[in-house]
Amino acid sequence: MLTVQVDLGTRSYPIYIGANLLNDRKLVAPFLGSAKVLVVSNETVAPLYLEKIQVLLGKNYRDAVILPDGEKFKTQDVVNQIYDKLLVDRFDRGCILVALGGGVVGDVTGFAAATYQRGVNFIQIPTTLLAQVDSSVGGKTGINHALGKNMIGAFHQPLCVIADTSVLKSLPDREFRAGLAEVIKYGLIGDLEFVEWLERNNRGLLDRKDELLSQAISQSCKHKAAIVAQDEREGGVRALLNLGHTFGHAIETATGYSRLLHGEAVAIGMVMAADLSMRIGWISAGDAKRVRQLIEIFGLPAVPPADIDKRRFLELMASDKKVQSGKTRFVLLKSVGHAVIESVTDTKLLDLTLIAGESLCRS
Amino acid sequence: MLTVQVDLGTRSYPIYIGANLLNDRKLVAPFLGSAKVLVVSNETVAPLYLEKIQVLLGKNYRDAVILPDGEKFKTQDVVNQIYDKLLVDRFDRGCILVALGGGVVGDVTGFAAATYQRGVNFIQIPTTLLAQVDSSVGGKTGINHALGKNMIGAFHQPLCVIADTSVLKSLPDREFRAGLAEVIKYGLIGDLEFVEWLERNNRGLLDRKDELLSQAISQSCKHKAAIVAQDEREGGVRALLNLGHTFGHAIETATGYSRLLHGEAVAIGMVMAADLSMRIGWISAGDAKRVRQLIEIFGLPAVPPADIDKRRFLELMASDKKVQSGKTRFVLLKSVGHAVIESVTDTKLLDLTLIAGESLCRS
Repeated sequence: MLTVQVDLGTRSYPIYIGANLLNDRKLVAPFLGSAKVLVVSNETVAPLYLEKIQVLLGKNYRDAVILPDGEKFKTQDVVNQIYDKLLVDRFDRGCILVALGGGVVGDVTGFAAATYQRGVNFIQIPTTLLAQVDSSVGGKTGINHALGKNMIGAFHQPLCVIADTSVLKSLPDREFRAGLAEVIKYGLIGDLEFVEWLERNNRGLLDRKDELLSQAISQSCKHKAAIVAQDEREGGVRALLNLGHTFGHAIETATGYSRLLHGEAVAIGMVMAADLSMRIGWISAGDAKRVRQLIEIFGLPAVPPADIDKRRFLELMASDKKVQSGKTRFVLLKSVGHAVIESVTDTKLLDLTLIAGESLCRS
Repeated sequence: MLTVQVDLGTRSYPIYIGANLLNDRKLVAPFLGSAKVLVVSNETVAPLYLEKIQVLLGKNYRDAVILPDGEKFKTQDVVNQIYDKLLVDRFDRGCILVALGGGVVGDVTGFAAATYQRGVNFIQIPTTLLAQVDSSVGGKTGINHALGKNMIGAFHQPLCVIADTSVLKSLPDREFRAGLAEVIKYGLIGDLEFVEWLERNNRGLLDRKDELLSQAISQSCKHKAAIVAQDEREGGVRALLNLGHTFGHAIETATGYSRLLHGEAVAIGMVMAADLSMRIGWISAGDAKRVRQLIEIFGLPAVPPADIDKRRFLELMASDKKVQSGKTRFVLLKSVGHAVIESVTDTKLLDLTLIAGESLCRS
């Protein structure tokens, strides 16, 4: 088992990473004490793992709230459902919520924990690769509002995170690969060696070998934890984590959040960021090509859907939440393994990236 | 002007206390920068002070949400109303909410600020004495749920608090006196000198003299700030602030939150706490009498409604949120100006206090 410590003073917590961790009560016992535990999961994950979790939690387990599966259930109504259960069954301030599922379950459960009786503890058991490497680090919790995604929420750190690589075996292939896009992201942002390791181990990772998955997850969590420790509440350097996301969000919105998974859109976004970095003259044509290849050897899409034209891209990027005083700031590459945050002043270069399509990163 | 600094590390903030502070833009200007400001107020307070606040905020002012007045509007619906305004008018993460009103407005606005885009800044302008001495210190924000008061919420500290004694002139007499009950509480908990000062200055305070009000508010805020600084998230010593509240809450619930104001119920609760402390043998009959007199010279009720019998009291206290593992813990007096937290094991003494009625603190 590998352990990554997320270092946030009194709010520090460990992430345990490895195979078959859900069988190991020793991991959670120190956090449970005599607390009453409510598990929150969804209709896809609960049939697979809820029983295991009941055994894991033993006498602490009280009940479970099973949500419908999907981003569209990341709502106030669902949070209210959790509050109702907690209040009807008189869970007190010493209770613990356990989030068993992907990012949506984690975000909703974390937000309920952040706001029930002004904050109770919670434990994350992420069951997707994306949630293991992304949403389990950093304490972002929240829900969507009719007028915007993630508009309501709080920063609330868990007691611990258990990232069991065994549960990834049940993930659909496309979703698994979409999670790898975020793993690749950490390499591109700040770790050339990790990029090289990913290039060497693409087969084994795609075969979901526990040992390799543990290393990839641990490395990703370490990178995210280091960035979050510097910038817990997202004032500065944390924006680096948005590599590929400004383009990616525009693609997700343009395609109505249905045609592509988040990680797939981010994969394309990273190729676009590499392309733009090349046009600005920061990375070589060879490096840009390397980024695109890295995306492609993991079976991820590298080119945006042909029906999003330049105007639509510009429009959507302008309304991004991360826009500051009207200027769109991009996360770009100074080199492979070194990302920076920059406003792009030469809009002609940006235009070229937006219309490049199949020729992205192919100078 | 007096200033009390609430010391919470990076979340520290000042409370400005004095007459006519709402005319002084210099106080808020350093916090405003170029932020868009949304004011939240209610139908009672807005007609009196919203214009003044618009002038105070100047170019930063954007709009106001005016809520209906009353505890029954401390709900998720009202918070959603604030979210909607913020999202429709595209308030970004750099915005500031201003709470202009009593405790309900402060709690609701603070909770909206705590959860909008995972936390934006807010400024408290409390317009009741109770809010100035109680809810403006400590960062508790939240709303009620059909199944319990203050069950949903967050700890979220404001940028600053402006306690203008001039606005207290417009308070109904009964509400003003109820606020004084919480002022008295700080004396009884930990400051004999302050008790003596209150005994000497009861007339001037009831006449709402600015100078005396400033001193009373500042002293109260200092005491609360010192306790909160030791125990921001309410694990231990902060429970001292509940002097009079275990009895008080039972009285409020028994009377349907309509017959007595919160401060009035707390005033009675403090007399009951003094009575019980006397029966346990901690304070003398003279001291118990002194506590009752202190309550009475400020025109506050000292005796619970005759229709709450012992059984009802015990029942309601048992379901109090602060009950730990079945034992009701009381805040009692070791002496006038020194409160402690204790479980009462001799239930016969408690029974005597509950049935004492008019003879409370009169041995």
